[in-house]
Amino acid sequence: MISDKIASLDELSGEDKDLIRSWIDPSKWPHTSVFRDWIRLIKEYASESDGKALRSISVLGQEMAKRSAIQREAVWEGSKTFEALNYLEEEIGIAGVDKFRSVSAPRVDITGPTPDWTSAEMQEWMDGPSKEIKDRVKAFLSDPIFEYAPNRGKEEYREKVLAWLRMLGQQGFGALGFPVAYGGMGDTMQYAAVFEVLGYHDLSLAVKFGVQFGLFGGSVLNLGTKYHHDKYLHRIGSMDLPGCFAMTETGHGSNVRDIETMGRYDPDTGEIEVHSPTYTSGKEYIGNALHAQMATVFVQLVVQGENHGVHAVLVPIRDQTGDLLPGIKVEDNGYKLGLNGVDNGRIWFDHVRVPRENLLNRFGQITLLGRYESQIPNPSKRFFTMLGTLVAGRICVAKGALSAAKSALTIAIRYALHRRQFKPDPQSAETLLLDYPSHQRRLMPKLATAYALHFALQQLIKKYAAQGNKSDRDLEALAAGLKSRTTWFTTDTVQECRESCGGKGYLRINRFADLKADSDIFSTFEGDNTVLLQLVAKSLLSNFKEDFNDAGLLGVIRYMGEQVSDQITRLNPVYKRKTDASHLKDVGFHIHAVEFRERKLLYSLGERVRQMFRKRITPYDVFLRTQNHMISLANAYVDRSIIETFQGKLSELEEGPVKKSIIKVYQLYALHQIATHQDWYLEQDYMEGAKTKAIRRQIERLCLELRKEAAYLVAAFGIPDGLLGAPIAFGEF
Amino acid sequence: MISDKIASLDELSGEDKDLIRSWIDPSKWPHTSVFRDWIRLIKEYASESDGKALRSISVLGQEMAKRSAIQREAVWEGSKTFEALNYLEEEIGIAGVDKFRSVSAPRVDITGPTPDWTSAEMQEWMDGPSKEIKDRVKAFLSDPIFEYAPNRGKEEYREKVLAWLRMLGQQGFGALGFPVAYGGMGDTMQYAAVFEVLGYHDLSLAVKFGVQFGLFGGSVLNLGTKYHHDKYLHRIGSMDLPGCFAMTETGHGSNVRDIETMGRYDPDTGEIEVHSPTYTSGKEYIGNALHAQMATVFVQLVVQGENHGVHAVLVPIRDQTGDLLPGIKVEDNGYKLGLNGVDNGRIWFDHVRVPRENLLNRFGQITLLGRYESQIPNPSKRFFTMLGTLVAGRICVAKGALSAAKSALTIAIRYALHRRQFKPDPQSAETLLLDYPSHQRRLMPKLATAYALHFALQQLIKKYAAQGNKSDRDLEALAAGLKSRTTWFTTDTVQECRESCGGKGYLRINRFADLKADSDIFSTFEGDNTVLLQLVAKSLLSNFKEDFNDAGLLGVIRYMGEQVSDQITRLNPVYKRKTDASHLKDVGFHIHAVEFRERKLLYSLGERVRQMFRKRITPYDVFLRTQNHMISLANAYVDRSIIETFQGKLSELEEGPVKKSIIKVYQLYALHQIATHQDWYLEQDYMEGAKTKAIRRQIERLCLELRKEAAYLVAAFGIPDGLLGAPIAFGEF
Repeated sequence: MISDKIASLDELSGEDKDLIRSWIDPSKWPHTSVFRDWIRLIKEYASESDGKALRSISVLGQEMAKRSAIQREAVWEGSKTFEALNYLEEEIGIAGVDKFRSVSAPRVDITGPTPDWTSAEMQEWMDGPSKEIKDRVKAFLSDPIFEYAPNRGKEEYREKVLAWLRMLGQQGFGALGFPVAYGGMGDTMQYAAVFEVLGYHDLSLAVKFGVQFGLFGGSVLNLGTKYHHDKYLHRIGSMDLPGCFAMTETGHGSNVRDIETMGRYDPDTGEIEVHSPTYTSGKEYIGNALHAQMATVFVQLVVQGENHGVHAVLVPIRDQTGDLLPGIKVEDNGYKLGLNGVDNGRIWFDHVRVPRENLLNRFGQITLLGRYESQIPNPSKRFFTMLGTLVAGRICVAKGALSAAKSALTIAIRYALHRRQFKPDPQSAETLLLDYPSHQRRLMPKLATAYALHFALQQLIKKYAAQGNKSDRDLEALAAGLKSRTTWFTTDTVQECRESCGGKGYLRINRFADLKADSDIFSTFEGDNTVLLQLVAKSLLSNFKEDFNDAGLLGVIRYMGEQVSDQITRLNPVYKRKTDASHLKDVGFHIHAVEFRERKLLYSLGERVRQMFRKRITPYDVFLRTQNHMISLANAYVDRSIIETFQGKLSELEEGPVKKSIIKVYQLYALHQIATHQDWYLEQDYMEGAKTKAIRRQIERLCLELRKEAAYLVAAFGIPDGLLGAPIAFGEF
Repeated sequence: MISDKIASLDELSGEDKDLIRSWIDPSKWPHTSVFRDWIRLIKEYASESDGKALRSISVLGQEMAKRSAIQREAVWEGSKTFEALNYLEEEIGIAGVDKFRSVSAPRVDITGPTPDWTSAEMQEWMDGPSKEIKDRVKAFLSDPIFEYAPNRGKEEYREKVLAWLRMLGQQGFGALGFPVAYGGMGDTMQYAAVFEVLGYHDLSLAVKFGVQFGLFGGSVLNLGTKYHHDKYLHRIGSMDLPGCFAMTETGHGSNVRDIETMGRYDPDTGEIEVHSPTYTSGKEYIGNALHAQMATVFVQLVVQGENHGVHAVLVPIRDQTGDLLPGIKVEDNGYKLGLNGVDNGRIWFDHVRVPRENLLNRFGQITLLGRYESQIPNPSKRFFTMLGTLVAGRICVAKGALSAAKSALTIAIRYALHRRQFKPDPQSAETLLLDYPSHQRRLMPKLATAYALHFALQQLIKKYAAQGNKSDRDLEALAAGLKSRTTWFTTDTVQECRESCGGKGYLRINRFADLKADSDIFSTFEGDNTVLLQLVAKSLLSNFKEDFNDAGLLGVIRYMGEQVSDQITRLNPVYKRKTDASHLKDVGFHIHAVEFRERKLLYSLGERVRQMFRKRITPYDVFLRTQNHMISLANAYVDRSIIETFQGKLSELEEGPVKKSIIKVYQLYALHQIATHQDWYLEQDYMEGAKTKAIRRQIERLCLELRKEAAYLVAAFGIPDGLLGAPIAFGEF
């Protein structure tokens, strides 16, 4: 149909027609740079136009052609051309109209002067080296095939997501993290950027993408060796081999070490027998369980009668036609709160035999002679090394969650710049929601936090990519901490944004329903947040212990010395009471405050633990008694790390309007963060009441200042209107 | 089919058969006392049995019959009887099995001694005079027709809820709040108790119930006069006349005063012409919009060219067959985040004429001569008097929300008493979730808060019922405050509980999906929470101002004097540092702390407002600048009121095991409440750090103590297992 219409455009040469026709095929889309040129041209025109001509793409195209130097002829005014353009516009559908809207964004009601920087500048700086890949994915997702359709039945929805996933695989987006030799670019940053953009579109797709390429593909890449890479990575990357990652069991989620699925090696046949001995040993919540042909199955590996702990084994579960293989039982997990486009299921294995080679044997292997061997003799260390391969997944989950929070903030802030309610007097217009201090207080600190987390995650993935797939405890701790922080932030933010949009926010079409339901589980999967924070704290304690061990008495003295200097600082009445704006906005104050909190909590926890050990309290009881303290410490560590990264990011940026604005965002974030723990600071006598009050006043002032830039700050997230959806974000009530 | 089976029970006399047959009809169910006897008998047997015999209702029945003194014959062992019983059991379905389970509840893993009180005792005390009606509704809802079915399409779901609503209407549950003369009992407490129980079952049903009987019926009752009561109340109560409550418009939600719908009186015809002049003046989110035959429409009433402000007019919108009447346009609001069993829609009126008599004229009327008259000459006062009729709705909304929170807590705490994860050493069993301090800290203060809010709302509805339908500003403020507090508490609690159940909590079958989605909008409808809190603060400020005005200079001195005595108290270093348990648990300390906070915030707000007025800042700007302060004050007022009520409730209770337990619940609530504002107390120098730390330690200790009673405390909410659903609550993973 579209082809026919193109053919009817008599004004075009045959060559031009062929070119345009080829663009219909998503795999042959024009290069990103072409899109960029178009967008630039359209924006230029839009900024000159009086806005009335912008009522449809056809009118716009016609007007632009009329103005263009090359085609000033009347050709473009022909009614046939216009008709064809109109037809194309209709075919592109709503997605197209939304996309069109963005050319004049932000079309919001701004009081006061517009900032002297553009969203595009800010976005470019935020995206950094990921900009190009993100633009490519955004362009790809703007194809009508990806159109957002609320409330689908799960079967239909799953089929759709599966089809989408295949398209992404075929375009090579899934393999980006794999080595070049296996069809990828060996670039985890690019892979994570794709995940981030998918998070703007549909979290079911993002999660399924993560399962196939990150978890299943990642396990083959990081736990397997060349044999597995050669045999599977290409097929995984192209979605030729759909797979799943079967770690969690009904009976064991967080406690992976005690999973019940067995993998017994049979030296007579050279096979591993994978078996679920009980009902609760069934693998559960496994994404892709209903579509996968192969599973990475985590088992207790028993060789020569000895249990060598948890290992991963590749087990074929379906044939090419999708029929289950013998011994495999799969059950649908049914409807979930959200993510109903993902086929989560339960899997049991009944004495299923796979060849010895199917053991992912990077960290432990079964020799030809049937003996177990590992270069990591300590089973506990081996276990944590294997689990370390989950780090990339955690970073992606955090990025996906942040995308949901950014979508919610974009919708709520745009709405708050359209929606008015209550007027000061009968003559006045009603007040914009974002002009209410309470509304600013709800949304602006969250906006600033979204920026802070954006940079924190960007920095984390950069470090991760640089370090290769080696294990790094500090990085793992940071990933765990940021995953927990970001996913909880998202839960809070989506809720606050929904409420900020009142009844309109409750309508499914305005996106919050899905944002809320889909992102909810992010605080649980890839590691329960509370459990992750305890891992973080344990890791910090170990560092602390190592410092002691390495340095002996000197180490203790050094720590005590630092404590003493803290004492002096916090007893300095001038510092405790300092309330002038320049002090409160100073990076030095912020970093001191968060470092003080972290060090103090670490030191006091270390002290408590040591004293309990002296009293011969068992390690487990020590852990139970200090659990809440550990969680506080982990949070302090995450806070310090985010502020540190944000400060580093600021110092990279050259002076100018963008920096001036981003400094305010940083200050709001930092002060908001400190205010969140004002009770602790008061309790520790680190600040006096006058100072905490002054901080809150400063926060209100920054909220008000940034309110004028709010529309531009959310536009800089760079979420295409077509992906954002939510009519209320565009003033449609 | 069931009748046939009953006929086949040869052992029964014809009379017995008739009796049993009659029970099948929900409207002829046995009296509550009969059910109570049965339950007592079953419980007695269950407590003696070894538990193995309890595997099905048929076995239980047979065993009980065998033991019974009257029927010790072998009759009941006949295979035919057993078969029939089995058949009946199957017919009753899952709901029956769930109900059966509760006979041995709480079947949870309790470590340590069981408490020396029973859930039944606690429940009886909590329910008080509402117990009987609640039991009746619970029994009614246990009919298989009300069975919980997750994930229905909206059309089908709406039909189901409509059918349920008709049944409730026919049983007389809807009219309970109406006067006896109109088929009711004139008892708002009973009506609210029904709403509370519906909240355990399905919030769509609860909301639709509230729309029909509370809002639509309530508007006719409270805004209308005898003419309207006689003509409509009977038909509304029986659901013969389904109606809706059309107040909110697309353009005006919180700001009702500026709605755009017009109601012009035409003296020539004696009619009121109802008209929506713009698109945004359409009524929106109107529950029952797709089923209603009549609407209470809020309009700007114009008589003789003068606008007399917002008034309510009854407008027929559909005929008896369900067809829309001329001039009415209705649009479906479509899928929502939740509550998809409620048919919310938009309604526009195109010059629709209704007779003068359709004006609900209790507070303002059009005389026969076509003039406007009102006994409340001040239009602002008239407006707020009319809106005061929304109070009952707000109380019910809070009660429904609390039911959702109680359901979530029951599920999460039961799960935490089944689910184990991580073990101290390879020999031990894994640890129960509720034995983790972090898990206790998540759930136990929320459990205590649910108790506190239960009593607060019970007290509120009691006061409301006692005061009749007169307007009372203090009561309205308290209702607004508690509505806001409870609905936000529910949002937090459902989320925390979902997360506490990990992946299992994310499965739709385990209820959190619906609890979360359905209760989400409670913070917005019947008054946006943030807006309501400002109303509360304004009301408090007016009281304050009146005190000043009444007492003149003396009043000021009195206030200052109280301030001074506060000063002394908080400067008393002994009090600030007092950390002994008996002080921290003392009711005197708690009430002093919350009163201090409320008074201090009120005084400082009053001071700020006065000073700004002196500087000639406009009232609107004063309001904007103090908005966050006002919200803090409103929260402090709500806190004080809840603690006060809880303390009053305690003092009513006679000494004994129930009281011993409930005192701990109270203490946990009070200390948790104070700890929530520890930053403020530290800032005000009301406490020192040593005291806030001691409070937190005390909270942890109380969490641990109550953990042993947790199963019983949730059982005392009295949510029938069949309504609770959620397999995980019963140890089914």
